[in-house]
Amino acid sequence: MATLEDLGVSAAINILSAFAFLLAFALLRIQPINDRVYFPKWYISGGRSNPRSSGNFVGKFVNLNFKTYLTFLNWMPQALRMSETEIINHAGLDSAVFLRIYTLGLKMFIPMSIVALLILIPVNVSSGTLFFLRKELVVSDIDKLSISNVPPKSLRFFFHIGLEYMFTIWICFLLYKEYDNIALMRLHFLASQRRRVEQFTVVVRNVPHISGHSVSDSVDGFFQTNHPDHYIGHQAVYNANRFAKFVRKRDRFQNWLDYYRLKFQRNPDTRPTMKMVLERQKIIKDPKSILPVAFLSFNSRWGASVCAQTQQSKNPTLWLTDWAPEPRDIYWRNLAIPFVSLTIRKLIITLSVFALVFFYMIPIAFVQSLANLDGLERVAPFLRPVIELKFIKSFLQGFLPGLALKIFLYILPTVLMIMSKIEGYIALSTLERKTSAKYYYFMLVNVFLGSIITGTAFEQLHAFLHQSPTQIPRTIGVSIPMKATFFMTYIMVDGWAGIAGEILRLKPLVIYHLKNVFIVKTERDRGKAMDPGSVDYPETLPSLQLYFLLGIVYAVVTPILLPFILVFFAFAYLVYRHQIINVYNQQYESAAAFWPQVHSRIIASLIISQLLLLGLLSTKKAARSTPLLVLLPILTFAFHKYCKNRFEPAFRKYPVEEAMSKDILEKTTEPDLNIKAYLADSYLHPILRSFEVEEEELVELETVEVRVDKLQTHQVASQTRSESSSPSPPHDVHHHQPSPPHHHVHQHQPSPPHYNDYPLPPEYYYHHTSPPHYNYQYQDQP
Amino acid sequence: MATLEDLGVSAAINILSAFAFLLAFALLRIQPINDRVYFPKWYISGGRSNPRSSGNFVGKFVNLNFKTYLTFLNWMPQALRMSETEIINHAGLDSAVFLRIYTLGLKMFIPMSIVALLILIPVNVSSGTLFFLRKELVVSDIDKLSISNVPPKSLRFFFHIGLEYMFTIWICFLLYKEYDNIALMRLHFLASQRRRVEQFTVVVRNVPHISGHSVSDSVDGFFQTNHPDHYIGHQAVYNANRFAKFVRKRDRFQNWLDYYRLKFQRNPDTRPTMKMVLERQKIIKDPKSILPVAFLSFNSRWGASVCAQTQQSKNPTLWLTDWAPEPRDIYWRNLAIPFVSLTIRKLIITLSVFALVFFYMIPIAFVQSLANLDGLERVAPFLRPVIELKFIKSFLQGFLPGLALKIFLYILPTVLMIMSKIEGYIALSTLERKTSAKYYYFMLVNVFLGSIITGTAFEQLHAFLHQSPTQIPRTIGVSIPMKATFFMTYIMVDGWAGIAGEILRLKPLVIYHLKNVFIVKTERDRGKAMDPGSVDYPETLPSLQLYFLLGIVYAVVTPILLPFILVFFAFAYLVYRHQIINVYNQQYESAAAFWPQVHSRIIASLIISQLLLLGLLSTKKAARSTPLLVLLPILTFAFHKYCKNRFEPAFRKYPVEEAMSKDILEKTTEPDLNIKAYLADSYLHPILRSFEVEEEELVELETVEVRVDKLQTHQVASQTRSESSSPSPPHDVHHHQPSPPHHHVHQHQPSPPHYNDYPLPPEYYYHHTSPPHYNYQYQDQP
Repeated sequence: MATLEDLGVSAAINILSAFAFLLAFALLRIQPINDRVYFPKWYISGGRSNPRSSGNFVGKFVNLNFKTYLTFLNWMPQALRMSETEIINHAGLDSAVFLRIYTLGLKMFIPMSIVALLILIPVNVSSGTLFFLRKELVVSDIDKLSISNVPPKSLRFFFHIGLEYMFTIWICFLLYKEYDNIALMRLHFLASQRRRVEQFTVVVRNVPHISGHSVSDSVDGFFQTNHPDHYIGHQAVYNANRFAKFVRKRDRFQNWLDYYRLKFQRNPDTRPTMKMVLERQKIIKDPKSILPVAFLSFNSRWGASVCAQTQQSKNPTLWLTDWAPEPRDIYWRNLAIPFVSLTIRKLIITLSVFALVFFYMIPIAFVQSLANLDGLERVAPFLRPVIELKFIKSFLQGFLPGLALKIFLYILPTVLMIMSKIEGYIALSTLERKTSAKYYYFMLVNVFLGSIITGTAFEQLHAFLHQSPTQIPRTIGVSIPMKATFFMTYIMVDGWAGIAGEILRLKPLVIYHLKNVFIVKTERDRGKAMDPGSVDYPETLPSLQLYFLLGIVYAVVTPILLPFILVFFAFAYLVYRHQIINVYNQQYESAAAFWPQVHSRIIASLIISQLLLLGLLSTKKAARSTPLLVLLPILTFAFHKYCKNRFEPAFRKYPVEEAMSKDILEKTTEPDLNIKAYLADSYLHPILRSFEVEEEELVELETVEVRVDKLQTHQVASQTRSESSSPSPPHDVHHHQPSPPHHHVHQHQPSPPHYNDYPLPPEYYYHHTSPPHYNYQYQDQP
Repeated sequence: MATLEDLGVSAAINILSAFAFLLAFALLRIQPINDRVYFPKWYISGGRSNPRSSGNFVGKFVNLNFKTYLTFLNWMPQALRMSETEIINHAGLDSAVFLRIYTLGLKMFIPMSIVALLILIPVNVSSGTLFFLRKELVVSDIDKLSISNVPPKSLRFFFHIGLEYMFTIWICFLLYKEYDNIALMRLHFLASQRRRVEQFTVVVRNVPHISGHSVSDSVDGFFQTNHPDHYIGHQAVYNANRFAKFVRKRDRFQNWLDYYRLKFQRNPDTRPTMKMVLERQKIIKDPKSILPVAFLSFNSRWGASVCAQTQQSKNPTLWLTDWAPEPRDIYWRNLAIPFVSLTIRKLIITLSVFALVFFYMIPIAFVQSLANLDGLERVAPFLRPVIELKFIKSFLQGFLPGLALKIFLYILPTVLMIMSKIEGYIALSTLERKTSAKYYYFMLVNVFLGSIITGTAFEQLHAFLHQSPTQIPRTIGVSIPMKATFFMTYIMVDGWAGIAGEILRLKPLVIYHLKNVFIVKTERDRGKAMDPGSVDYPETLPSLQLYFLLGIVYAVVTPILLPFILVFFAFAYLVYRHQIINVYNQQYESAAAFWPQVHSRIIASLIISQLLLLGLLSTKKAARSTPLLVLLPILTFAFHKYCKNRFEPAFRKYPVEEAMSKDILEKTTEPDLNIKAYLADSYLHPILRSFEVEEEELVELETVEVRVDKLQTHQVASQTRSESSSPSPPHDVHHHQPSPPHHHVHQHQPSPPHYNDYPLPPEYYYHHTSPPHYNYQYQDQP
């Protein structure tokens, strides 16, 4: 077992590395050359186009203003300056609510720490029983501060039970307030949004094949019949797999762009772009490449809301309607999965996640066993001389287990994301939420339970095998407080040093400078080399939830763990606030759709803590006090049910009242609005669209180059333009009446150049309250 | 343990009593005097108004046609003669689907019995190991036919596992076909129904209180705004508690009707009816007696379907809309329960059901322990001389345990129904389904698991306490086949004799004749004295599900139990078919809404049987074969999920396509239909309405009497009529435009007399495909 000394060494290492990261960050961030690494958000939102520099040539790369070096920690107050409303406008509601989780943690654990430390530490320390325990169970100093130190049958357990009740009430109170608040924020955010395409769009899956009718015909027929007053048309979804082959080819050519750019000018017919144009047209014209999925357009939010929420067909596996995710949130590959396949996929993935969660345990158990060096020495005596070195011993015991676990968990989110994709969800936000849920189960079983049970299993395997099985719950109960030191180390490695590493952004820094040296030619390239990243929900939410779990479980058992968690929450709050303001650029906006999950997990943590305390106390023979605890999980669960009924529909549905009031408002303010034109092409597959944009971009690049070369600019430009406009934009919106031509405006205006990772019609951005994130409109500076 | 001989005695007793019941039934049913007890359905449906009698005076009471006595079992072929379609028309879809459960049982168990008996009995018998078992476990002859007889590690277990796979596939196949069939039947049934008020009506609960507005105003305001094209008005719900006091008073007077009838004529002002009229008017006029609940009327099925399926308000606890149940299906008391209260009620009831299910076990365990007379003798040696009498011993062992259990369960459904009512469901059909679910849990834990575990716990308590705990699952595994005899007895008592008792209808018979002697004055009274009853779903569905469970669990373990179940299914099918055709009169029509529950329970039985077999084989050290079974529960569960997704929405939702197609059809066939008038007053509280009817009835009775007395008939009749019409019918439908007066037609036409237990507007019956069940229109025969 780790001693207090080991813990001290670990704390020192982690605090030092955290400080080293912070120092490095503080120095690197004020260098103009790194400006795009540490402030990309401002470039994207249009708040900055050039690094602030001190004028001369060297000053463009290195910060020469030495005064700024003295105030190198001033990012912290800066990060706190922005108000929540400003953050919502700047980075969206998701980010603002994500930060609220940290403040919730602080609000929850600050009073809990004070109460628990003031009351329980004296109660526990003055009890002093651990000296009487069997010698095989090695006891650390931390344990003397914990509930383990209270003798069996003691009346002092009433303190612990009373506090568990108090804490439960306090946490439920905070959770209720928070849920209420966030639900209101969400509704307010949705209500204050300007017109958005997804408000008028419903996705329909499993369109049945009716012989003699194309998919488009049957979709139109069905919805014209059943939603006659509101349905105005639909956008087909194309199977772009064949086309994707060409796109992959194009991507391979991306780095050779310069070379091809020259070559094309000489020999324009061999451009892969031409082939792609043909292929693209083939896809759009071939009725077989239309998938049995469509995005339905409605003339009012009310009509869309009604269609999304009702069951359409007698056969509940056909004509499945649901809200369309916003266009940049769609995961296109999954749109075409048929219904039967979904059930099978879900089964397979559930089994796989189960296997992953439970059999991943074996290697972790091995890593955990290293935590007990005495055990290791016994297994491998030849290592003794190395291990016995004082420093190495402390290092291994304090640092290794947490770090090894962290590395171990590194590839996991990717695997889980692939699993979620196989399950068939059609929105990126849903995929991230589902991945996060899987990751949480993994952490719960392997990090939390695995560390408690397997860790002790290695230590006490002998004892286990020779005890009668009724002894097992007792041993587990005893080992919960014993694992406090392991979790403290874990919090320091994962929480403290990990968060400091997050702010340093070492990987994006290196990649940006590499790209800057080898690839970047224009300012636009520099913009592309920038990797703002985003809050990584699949990973951060489960770890956050794990910290809540640890805090809640140990609050009563080993309260000395709480300050570690407090430091984590405070520090991570600062760091993420800074990152959200200056760095991250969210890929989608789900309007805090993840909150119900966070809420449920904290409730689950509460129930786990209550059950574990129940198990622990039953080993302490506290027969008088223990029955008092039985009611608590039931009440907590009832509270959860109530919150779920009360608030969750606000996160899952779009009320008719809301839709109607916005429709009425719009009708009075913009009576002449042409919804059909507004929705046109908003849900075109990005491969088909990005090609459109790409094509223009080529035109644009050529124009730029040509201009630089001082050749007959206008002639070439107009020539290439006439080529690129020859593949006429697809009329994929099948309207009842011949619709007015809905070509994008920018297709006919070669400047300004328009780079777009998540291509959307300009109207989409236009009516967006938050700044147009993905609309990197850099001014070219030739 | 019961021996084969005990079982024989029990079988003899039960078969004899079943035959006695059948014989009594056969004799009683052909007596004209009992005609209304055994054929009430025909009186209600209008197919019969007088008993078929042989003419003379005695023949009116006793059947003198001796030929009919010879064919006293001819009800059986008669019961089979009606086709399923005819049954649907005659008794509704619920009854038809209820019968299909029995045929499903037959289809399932006939091939299973044949296969299991042919394969497993030889396999088991030829193994012969039970002689080597420890002597403490007393072994019966039945066990030699069961899996207990196969020695550990035997390769013969592959037969059992193979059969379990075969049976699972067979059952899943049948279930899939049946679900598909019933879903189609339901859709066809709903589609073929003529216009019904509930198709146009949505119930809204938790209408928020807006100060300065009455409930009616806010309902109109909200739905006129949010469903402008389809909402046409609503019907308020009145708090009739104060009124109910008067109604109770009236009910007390009911038996003194004759007395009052004379008194009223002399002194009409003291009639309680007059007070009631005033009180009724007070309720309807007082805005405070309007509850925050309303029945919304829509001008199309589409509009109602949309409103029922969507979320209305930003606050998901307000404006809760759902399909209105049909008027006769509404449980009025629960309409006013507010949202917060519902969560608490649910919690309390869940805990109570849990307590009931698990602590009811203690008395049952005591009853069960009687099954082992050897144990009883050891506990109470003074009883030995009595018990040792051969016949008493067999009787006690064979008959008592099942019977005691049955009596024990007698009051339970009432308690569970009260619990469901407290939970707050607003439809009788839902209440019955929820009660049936609670009852099933009770039966599963107490009858099934309780008999297996507690029964053996009493026998093997000593062994348990002195064994290491790993021995427990083994002992349970062994005891499953040992309990086969108990369940055979149970099936005979509950299934065979119980069903024969059902057809005899002893209680309604006695009550009818008592009423006939003491109360009945007119033919109408005779109609009221008739108690047709209905299929008692809360009790019959769980027992049916228990039989499925027993059959599926024992199919592989002790196949000799299957013929007992087969006899039950066949016999019960005949009896219920007869009862549904001739006796029962369903209170509501839910269009087979209970089927998904039945399906789930059979699936659950499958999974239980697989897990139990797994446990049983693990005690047999069949290490090679057991792992083969692990996959089966997972696959079964996946099948269940698939069926749920595929079929269940057909039972829970009303697709937009369906609504629209019926709307269109109606618009073309009946373009002038006045929906508003059609819906008027359809959802008036039955207490308020039944009074209206009652009042008329009084008028009617007086008219009849007066006519008999040859007094100035017309004068009195018109006088009382003018009184009764003074409380003008309530205008509870708050329409936007002044609506045309929608008084019931029959209110202004004193004849024909109209008695109505479930009062509905005449239109309701008019457009009902099945005969108007509750419209007892008897011709008065003065």
